[in-house]
This record gives sequence, C-alpha cells and structure tokens, in this order.
Amino acid sequence: MISKNKIKYLKSLQQKKIRKEEKCFLAEGEKIVVEILQSDAIVTELYATDIFINKYEKLIQQKNVNVLETNHLDLEQIGYLQTNHFASILMPFLPEKKIISTQKTLTIVLDNIQDAGNFGTIIRIADWFGVQGIVCSLDTVDVYNSKVLGASMASFLRVPIVYQPLRAFFEQNKDISVFGAMLDGENLYHKQAKINGVLIMGNESKGISKEISHFITHKIMIPRFGEAESLNVGIATAIFCNHWRENQ
Amino acid sequence: MISKNKIKYLKSLQQKKIRKEEKCFLAEGEKIVVEILQSDAIVTELYATDIFINKYEKLIQQKNVNVLETNHLDLEQIGYLQTNHFASILMPFLPEKKIISTQKTLTIVLDNIQDAGNFGTIIRIADWFGVQGIVCSLDTVDVYNSKVLGASMASFLRVPIVYQPLRAFFEQNKDISVFGAMLDGENLYHKQAKINGVLIMGNESKGISKEISHFITHKIMIPRFGEAESLNVGIATAIFCNHWRENQ
Repeated sequence: MISKNKIKYLKSLQQKKIRKEEKCFLAEGEKIVVEILQSDAIVTELYATDIFINKYEKLIQQKNVNVLETNHLDLEQIGYLQTNHFASILMPFLPEKKIISTQKTLTIVLDNIQDAGNFGTIIRIADWFGVQGIVCSLDTVDVYNSKVLGASMASFLRVPIVYQPLRAFFEQNKDISVFGAMLDGENLYHKQAKINGVLIMGNESKGISKEISHFITHKIMIPRFGEAESLNVGIATAIFCNHWRENQ
Repeated sequence: MISKNKIKYLKSLQQKKIRKEEKCFLAEGEKIVVEILQSDAIVTELYATDIFINKYEKLIQQKNVNVLETNHLDLEQIGYLQTNHFASILMPFLPEKKIISTQKTLTIVLDNIQDAGNFGTIIRIADWFGVQGIVCSLDTVDVYNSKVLGASMASFLRVPIVYQPLRAFFEQNKDISVFGAMLDGENLYHKQAKINGVLIMGNESKGISKEISHFITHKIMIPRFGEAESLNVGIATAIFCNHWRENQ
C-alpha cells in the first residue's frame, strides 16, 4: 500500500519545480521500469502491482529495491499514464555526465525543444546512433518529465544530457563545426562534406533562435519532394544522425 | 451555438464505427482547419470561436462554408484535443484515390500500425518525400481518427491512402521489389542497390507479420551504433524514405 501522503508527494513530482527541489523523479510503465531495474542506475523505491511483482520477482530481488505493492488506480493517480497495470519507480536525479564535443563525433544541441514526446524521441535516436550527448538550452523541456522518459524508452539512462546556456557551450567549443537546419541551407544530398561536430535542432514552431543561429558554420536542409510544410524535429534529427553515420 | 444534439452527434464521430456509418469525420485545431479551408477539399460545417472567425474571416468567406460560432468548451467536448480555442471542422470522407505502385516510385505498406501518432507522422513523411501512397492493412488504425489527422498536419489531404487486405495488394504487384526492415536484413549503408517499389513497415511491437514477410524481396536494416533497443516506426520510415530519395 502507498499512504495518502506518499501519493500526494509522488503526484507532486509531476511538477518540474518540485522535482528540482527534491532531486528525484518518477518513471512509469512496465517496459521502462524493467529497463531501469536491469540497469545499474540507483533507484529509491518501486511501486508495483502483484502482476508486475510476480512477473519480475527475480529482477526485483537482484536489484534489492524496496517495493511497495499497490494497484493500478494508485499508479494512475501518481503519474501521467492513463493506464498503468504494472509499475512506477522513484529515482534520484542521474549523476550529470560530462559531454566532450569533438570534430570527429556528433553532439546534439537542442534550442528550446518544447514537446516532451519530441525530446524523448530525440534521446532514443541519440542512443541508437551513439551521439556524444545532448546539450539543452535552459528553456528546453525537462528531461525528468515523465512523458520525456516514456518516449525515450529508457535511453535517458545512457545518453549524457546537460542543460546550460547555449552561448556558453558554443564559446567553449569554438573550433568545432556547427550544423544547423535552415531553409536556405545546403541540400543534404548535394553535400559531400560530412555532418560532424555539433548539430543544432530548433524549437518546433520557431526553429533555431536568432541568437544561436550565429554559431552555425554549416547550414543544411533536407530536400522536399512533396507538399508537407515541414518535418517533425525528431524526424529531422534522425535523418541528420543517419547521414552522419552513413558518411563518416 | 451548437445544439446539444449536434454535440452528441459530433462526439460520437470519435468512434470509428460511427464514422464509417456516417461517412464523415471531424478535424480539430487551428493549423489543420486553416489548411483544410485553404485546400479544395469538400467540407460540411465549421465550428469556430470568435477568435478564429475574426482571424480567418476572409478565408472562411472564400470557402463559403457554413459556420457555427461556439466556445472552446464545446470544441473540447466534441473532440480529442484537451484545449482548442480555435476551430473544428466536419468533413465527408475524402474520395478514395487509386495508388499505382511502380518500380520507379515508392509505395509504403503499413502492416497493423496501431499508434495514431505514428500513423499521422508517417503520412506527413510520405507527403514530404512524395511517395505514391500508403496501403494499410485492414487492422491499421483508422486514418480519420482525430489524432492521426492532427499528427499528419493536413498531409492526409494530399497523400493517397487506401485500406485493403495486404495479401491481395502483393498479389496484384508481383513484379515490384518489396523492401522490409528485418533484424537480419542487409545494412542500409552497405547497400548499393536503391530502395524503390514497395516499403513495408510493421506493427510497433510485433514488427512485420509472418504472413506478410513472405512477400519481402529485399530485407534491410538501419545499423545501430548505440544501445537503444529499437527505433520508432515513424523514425525508421523517414530514414528509409530519405535513403530512397537520396539514392534515386
């Protein structure tokens, strides 16, 4: 059972401000909780239904985590998932990893990404293609937002993610190529040059901000053959990362 | 004002069964409604707030559509959007377009795609890259689901989409190459051969069904460099479509 007070506390972690104060967050759903239990990440407490506890008995024992048995109604009350018949897990913030950007690797810079699903998707793509890490502007959606975690499919455990003023990041990395998608950029298909160094992806509706676009050294664009007005930022990130790896 | 009966009716269109009976559907939100009004698609009735009506007065007049002024509460009641301060529009089913698959073009086949957001994203990608059309298995999520329409960003108006038993489709298109993503497929980066003809994308958790995988003539896979277990089906579709256009 979870006490009423704990339910209230866990629910409050849906707010970024409270997470920052408490330095912890909740991850929700069967798949992601299983991946977290399989990882070496430090966890605080597991809230799980009897279904989950029976199904993953061994894994829970191995992790040696404190478990509170509960029902799906409580799980749904404390989190964002509309249905959760399995588990949620409380964790402290991950230790911040350092991202070392180089000309031979790829670092993704996110300039004010607002949609949690998009950010989670980008984390998963970054994990698949093995980028150095993701540097987020301070106004990018919080990585510990449950929806971001869910869309990342536990890739948030592996990809180094930092938040910092982007201007400072670029000033620290002056000798590295910076690629940015712009409408007047060079056609990705014409380009013999490789994408590498840093790739900036901009806000869903406003694109890359004026202040940040000054740091771009190589403007690129994905050619359009039909009539869609734009590509989703996650889709564009995937195409660029794929291009980086294919032309390395 | 929208009458209570009409609210009930419009709300019922959230159900696929009712949509099929009524042969009409609701599209929601400012951006998509504007694109629909700008297109030559036939529309039945527009439900809009005074904000929307004032902002798009000219466009509404040009389209010569019947408008019912309403408030955001009604709009939110009849649709799936949690907040809608602008408009929703009632439309008859689009006339079904024929998809002519050839070896020199690309047709996307969806085998039991279940997530509305994924399907909408794939429609938008198909529009961007100019594919011939999308052939959906009968168990793929309904294109007139409001979430599919929303994620497609009005690309559903332009991309030919048909539902048919996939076996019949493949039997009608025996001479065309059929590409399918499989774990044991050929590395996309090693492949000199072009992707063209038909591309099958499978269900989010089960992949391409056994029955349909028999029709694949070219197994392909996107190489992985990190540790993410998989790529989202929309992301993979984008990478394949991009590869098709880049290597044409």
